[in-house]
Amino acid sequence: TIPVGIINLGTSENKLCFDLLQKRLMRPDMLQIEPAFLQYPDWKGHSFLREEVAKFLSHYCRSPKPLKPKNVVVMNGCGSLFSALAATLCDPEDAILIPSPFYGVITEDVGLYSSVKLHHVPLYSQVPTGSDVRPFQLTVEKLENSLKEAKKEGLNIKALILLNPHNPLGEVYSSEEMISFLEFAKMHKLHVIVDEIYMLSVFNETDTFHSVLSLDGLPDPQRTHIMWGVSKDFAMAGMRVGMVYSENRDLVQALDQLGCFHGVPGPTQYQMAQLLRDRDWLNSEFLPENRRRLREAHSFMTEELKKLDIPFLHRSAGFFIWADLSKYLSEKTFAEELSLWRCFLKHKVLLSCGQAFSCVSPGWFRIIFTDQLHKLKLGLSIAHFHFSSCILVVSPMEWDKM
Amino acid sequence: TIPVGIINLGTSENKLCFDLLQKRLMRPDMLQIEPAFLQYPDWKGHSFLREEVAKFLSHYCRSPKPLKPKNVVVMNGCGSLFSALAATLCDPEDAILIPSPFYGVITEDVGLYSSVKLHHVPLYSQVPTGSDVRPFQLTVEKLENSLKEAKKEGLNIKALILLNPHNPLGEVYSSEEMISFLEFAKMHKLHVIVDEIYMLSVFNETDTFHSVLSLDGLPDPQRTHIMWGVSKDFAMAGMRVGMVYSENRDLVQALDQLGCFHGVPGPTQYQMAQLLRDRDWLNSEFLPENRRRLREAHSFMTEELKKLDIPFLHRSAGFFIWADLSKYLSEKTFAEELSLWRCFLKHKVLLSCGQAFSCVSPGWFRIIFTDQLHKLKLGLSIAHFHFSSCILVVSPMEWDKM
Repeated sequence: TIPVGIINLGTSENKLCFDLLQKRLMRPDMLQIEPAFLQYPDWKGHSFLREEVAKFLSHYCRSPKPLKPKNVVVMNGCGSLFSALAATLCDPEDAILIPSPFYGVITEDVGLYSSVKLHHVPLYSQVPTGSDVRPFQLTVEKLENSLKEAKKEGLNIKALILLNPHNPLGEVYSSEEMISFLEFAKMHKLHVIVDEIYMLSVFNETDTFHSVLSLDGLPDPQRTHIMWGVSKDFAMAGMRVGMVYSENRDLVQALDQLGCFHGVPGPTQYQMAQLLRDRDWLNSEFLPENRRRLREAHSFMTEELKKLDIPFLHRSAGFFIWADLSKYLSEKTFAEELSLWRCFLKHKVLLSCGQAFSCVSPGWFRIIFTDQLHKLKLGLSIAHFHFSSCILVVSPMEWDKM
Repeated sequence: TIPVGIINLGTSENKLCFDLLQKRLMRPDMLQIEPAFLQYPDWKGHSFLREEVAKFLSHYCRSPKPLKPKNVVVMNGCGSLFSALAATLCDPEDAILIPSPFYGVITEDVGLYSSVKLHHVPLYSQVPTGSDVRPFQLTVEKLENSLKEAKKEGLNIKALILLNPHNPLGEVYSSEEMISFLEFAKMHKLHVIVDEIYMLSVFNETDTFHSVLSLDGLPDPQRTHIMWGVSKDFAMAGMRVGMVYSENRDLVQALDQLGCFHGVPGPTQYQMAQLLRDRDWLNSEFLPENRRRLREAHSFMTEELKKLDIPFLHRSAGFFIWADLSKYLSEKTFAEELSLWRCFLKHKVLLSCGQAFSCVSPGWFRIIFTDQLHKLKLGLSIAHFHFSSCILVVSPMEWDKM
């Protein structure tokens, strides 16, 4: 039978652990209904969940002091949190600094409801002579330059967004780097939203993740807000649960106001609390096995890219590889990048191209590797066929069922 | 033991049916996890749920033709739907007509994110000589007058919100009335949001509810959008599930864009689909027993009000009685109304006063009757004590546990 449909290597989802999750989420302890679950909740989240979140983050972020439940706000996903944070930290038309490339959906998250703009801090693929040692390296100097430039343009910059581990770069910042970014923000009185949604998806010992919650004291705790959620690290984007940790009481209160638009069902809050407190399952089953599968899929994909002689950033976090396909562009422009992207899609492989992440260097693509091996193989073979100028005729819809 | 806490007769929740709901929601068919539930969903809602919603509304709204799943958008509650509808139908600073008194939270629903204002169509308690036959009666003439007045004030009115059954009046409009309102809107090219969230909470044969979806043809189908949700009729405000039905494709597409901020967990969508398709449970167990309990609690509360000689609107829909406590005001002002409200609260009874619904006649209160009898009795006895100028000393927090 001819496979139909598309191979989706574009959406950042971890499809490697459904068996583990299904088994856990269908255990009888998940089916519980109490009056409070069906009544209007506290819009910041039920206290039983906020308590578990505080304990969970204290443990996995290695916080020196126990984190406080009252500083936790739970909403239906990190997109909602970005929207609500933008609405509360900014006035409409204010702007937020964000290093590019970055997970492009944030543009809509802060813009659709709140009319807040992003101002990009461009990072380049070439390693210049200077203090940079990595491609796309973020430095305080670049942050300073972008902030100056934004002010010149008349923009009112209110905040900085940092992704750690980084999407799409897979970059994991050292504590020293993070501190320097936070110090920069403090100096300019910028709020910082630190998105740590991939914190438990670091799958090789070569990279060690340090949450800003592990720091012995934040430079500016009233202006530092940490995000996490279950979409990536627990492979449950469909569960719609995200959370922010902030010591800023006014912010927590403002988020509570907007929380009525971003509520999580009571029974779901209960299930998530069950999951977060199940250290046995997390530490003995899910987390090690998930890391093993991530490592295996990542290693398969990188080997294939090496065979194809495609350069990429060798990182060990997230569900994606940031790869340089510019050698396949007839000229190094974004128009050519888009036409390469279209060509993949025509051949039924969905990738994400650099411009979707506002990347300033054309030809980079984000390739998701967190799918079953046979799909990755098929996706790559098609890409390969394409590179060899072969045309593969397939019709849509059935591959997704493979 | 002295009871502590407050008697909440202010929040519109049905607390009469938890036993039925718990039994149903804990049946094993509710615990199901499939890959699609954990992956990024269609932001309008999973197709399996939209199909069940269309069938459910077709049946219970007595739609002459089967309603179409593609016209259904599911979000996490009707507050989210109001927010998203305001953002899509209006530009910031545009306004929406709404007859007052009305469920006051709508002001925040359309305003917090979307900066849309409400323009009230004031309804009065006195029955004037004219075509009016009921207190607080809505007529096309009043809509016309308010629209003219709004235009004079330079407001750009884009839509009309109609609540049917009405909160807080308990009013159920006849089909003829609804058609006249819809014709008014059509003539002025206004969108109409018809909120039918209490449609299954009509508990006496004296009132018959007619959904606008039962009409043989809407006057302006492209501008008519019908809302329903599980918060009231299924007594599950904590489940966060609401839906809109609209034939307007552009609107559905726009709501889909904003849907990422208002997503419902996949497993919750599955559970709601199970519930909506379980006609056996709905028709033989839940709906008749719920109506019986609503009727009983309503009848207890109205008898008590009669004993206290408090005038009220005798309606048979919703969870509340709209009562005229103006005889307890030393003068008929909103300041006095607020001080009466505070006095109740001081004596540990939470009610909602008319100004919270933007009522123009002072002294009206909304009294929720959908709680256990012993709480209603306690709440009333305290209110009665107060009226007799007795002071009851109680301390907070424990009554809610009674």
